[in-house]
Amino acid sequence: MALHKESFIIDGLEISNWSREVFDNMRKGGLTAVNATVAVLENFIKTMDNIAWWHKALEEHADLICQVRTVTDIKRAKEEGKTGIIFGFQNLSPIEDDLDRLATFHRLGVKVMQVTYMEANYAGQGCLERIDAGLTGFGIEAVEEMNRLGILIDLSHVGYRTTMETIEASEKPVALTHANPKSICDHPRNKPDEVLKAVAKKGGVIGATIFPAFLPSGNKSTLKDFVGVIDHLVGMVGIDHVGVGTDFTEGQPREWFDWILTGKSKKGPALALNHPVVNPEGIQHSGDFSNITAALLARGYADTDVKKVIGLNFMRLFGEIW
Amino acid sequence: MALHKESFIIDGLEISNWSREVFDNMRKGGLTAVNATVAVLENFIKTMDNIAWWHKALEEHADLICQVRTVTDIKRAKEEGKTGIIFGFQNLSPIEDDLDRLATFHRLGVKVMQVTYMEANYAGQGCLERIDAGLTGFGIEAVEEMNRLGILIDLSHVGYRTTMETIEASEKPVALTHANPKSICDHPRNKPDEVLKAVAKKGGVIGATIFPAFLPSGNKSTLKDFVGVIDHLVGMVGIDHVGVGTDFTEGQPREWFDWILTGKSKKGPALALNHPVVNPEGIQHSGDFSNITAALLARGYADTDVKKVIGLNFMRLFGEIW
Repeated sequence: MALHKESFIIDGLEISNWSREVFDNMRKGGLTAVNATVAVLENFIKTMDNIAWWHKALEEHADLICQVRTVTDIKRAKEEGKTGIIFGFQNLSPIEDDLDRLATFHRLGVKVMQVTYMEANYAGQGCLERIDAGLTGFGIEAVEEMNRLGILIDLSHVGYRTTMETIEASEKPVALTHANPKSICDHPRNKPDEVLKAVAKKGGVIGATIFPAFLPSGNKSTLKDFVGVIDHLVGMVGIDHVGVGTDFTEGQPREWFDWILTGKSKKGPALALNHPVVNPEGIQHSGDFSNITAALLARGYADTDVKKVIGLNFMRLFGEIW
Repeated sequence: MALHKESFIIDGLEISNWSREVFDNMRKGGLTAVNATVAVLENFIKTMDNIAWWHKALEEHADLICQVRTVTDIKRAKEEGKTGIIFGFQNLSPIEDDLDRLATFHRLGVKVMQVTYMEANYAGQGCLERIDAGLTGFGIEAVEEMNRLGILIDLSHVGYRTTMETIEASEKPVALTHANPKSICDHPRNKPDEVLKAVAKKGGVIGATIFPAFLPSGNKSTLKDFVGVIDHLVGMVGIDHVGVGTDFTEGQPREWFDWILTGKSKKGPALALNHPVVNPEGIQHSGDFSNITAALLARGYADTDVKKVIGLNFMRLFGEIW
């Protein structure tokens, strides 16, 4: 499709089992850049191991992918027909107890960081944590330092109070790279309207996600349901603040889902998932990304609006922060 | 003094700049056992380094000190005229994100662990943290595991809600190894009556501390002021729940105080201290410990009650937990 081919296509978040097959699918789907999760529960050393893996992968698959640190890099990726990889954290666990490591990871190209994953960390509380109290002193300083360095702050998995306090504390726009409205699907990982509106008001972007547990029909969801989420978000916060953050988990085994949902607990997953996780028909992996573009056009979105949702809104946000 | 010589003398907490001079003073003061801080802000690796240091020190100064893991070990230390060293943590930072490390450190002889230091950690919030919300899910599991292993839980630096929830969550008695009543000196590190009473009701022990900032006259405090704290505590919770936890910081330089009061922040100490820290006259280091015994006798305490305060109460608690 011509519109898809000429557009900048950005996926706000993927956390796949990275492999040549996944990178191939990104190319098939025409993705210009992806916020690729480099750490989700990992500590400093394990994250450094992951980054070392990525450095090898970026060499080995240089025909398909390239690292992205700036919007100029994204434009170059587009010209060269590659998918730009944006290193992203879904947790501040990689910096452990040392705020200076934010700068270290930033130098290594980590341009998006989520304040917390599901549980509490040193900065604040995640959306499945038993307490919900807001940013710690460490968290306040982390927000300041991410602002200073130019790291995009992500709040997708963050608890309500920590989210609201981060929006207030941040001098720069923030993102929900992959989250849906609670008003469409009442799940602890989805966001109340108040949060969605506050992120938009701050100038941020909300990436609608295809992860089936966050859609009203779960594993039986369709591409139409997903476009319904986009419609709902656009109606609530306007066309300039909505993007796509698929949360693709391509190739991840069941044990991996157990791991990310268990976190630091020894008691097993904090959340029950229907296994296997079945993505909506028509949008099962990055290779299907053009179907989103087609569905938005079919839904009656103008070309310029489609371009915003499938990439330009995240591009604008990256440009403002980086 | 005969009573001091025959008694078990236990210091609920010391965090000195460990050296032969300090160990010598412990012997001069007649200390049978000390909860010696092995980690306060350290992570896993740094704590392991500290423990390795202790293993060398225990060999090198075997004429003065020995490691204590059980009440039998304390009795043996007394017989041999040595001071028993109880490894203690003032933070759960050493286990980082892994509850299994509680068992590892327990095997290494760490028999007392504080839930948090001043700030938030993965388990809960400290008394200087900007939020006060209670135990995290990780914290709840940590309490269960410390109960199971037989590690004494310390709440001296812990925030109010995390303290109250720990008392409720713990199946075993807990300690305030070194804390004074807020009603005598209104300092964020001192404890409201509600907390002191709850610890006693749980069967725990409160170690009155000589740290000058926690005494009403600060650096101008006297041994008499300290005995006043013991009087106040005994009046509130009864003679069976009061001990001594000096919080001696013998030989610690000013930079060390800055370090422990700065924690993970990059903004400097969270609390202003009057430097140099001057301990009350008559009880400036462990070598002066017998002065406490003398002062309690002079204050009119019965021999059996003095023995409880200077050692037997902590002995009883150790016996119940270990």
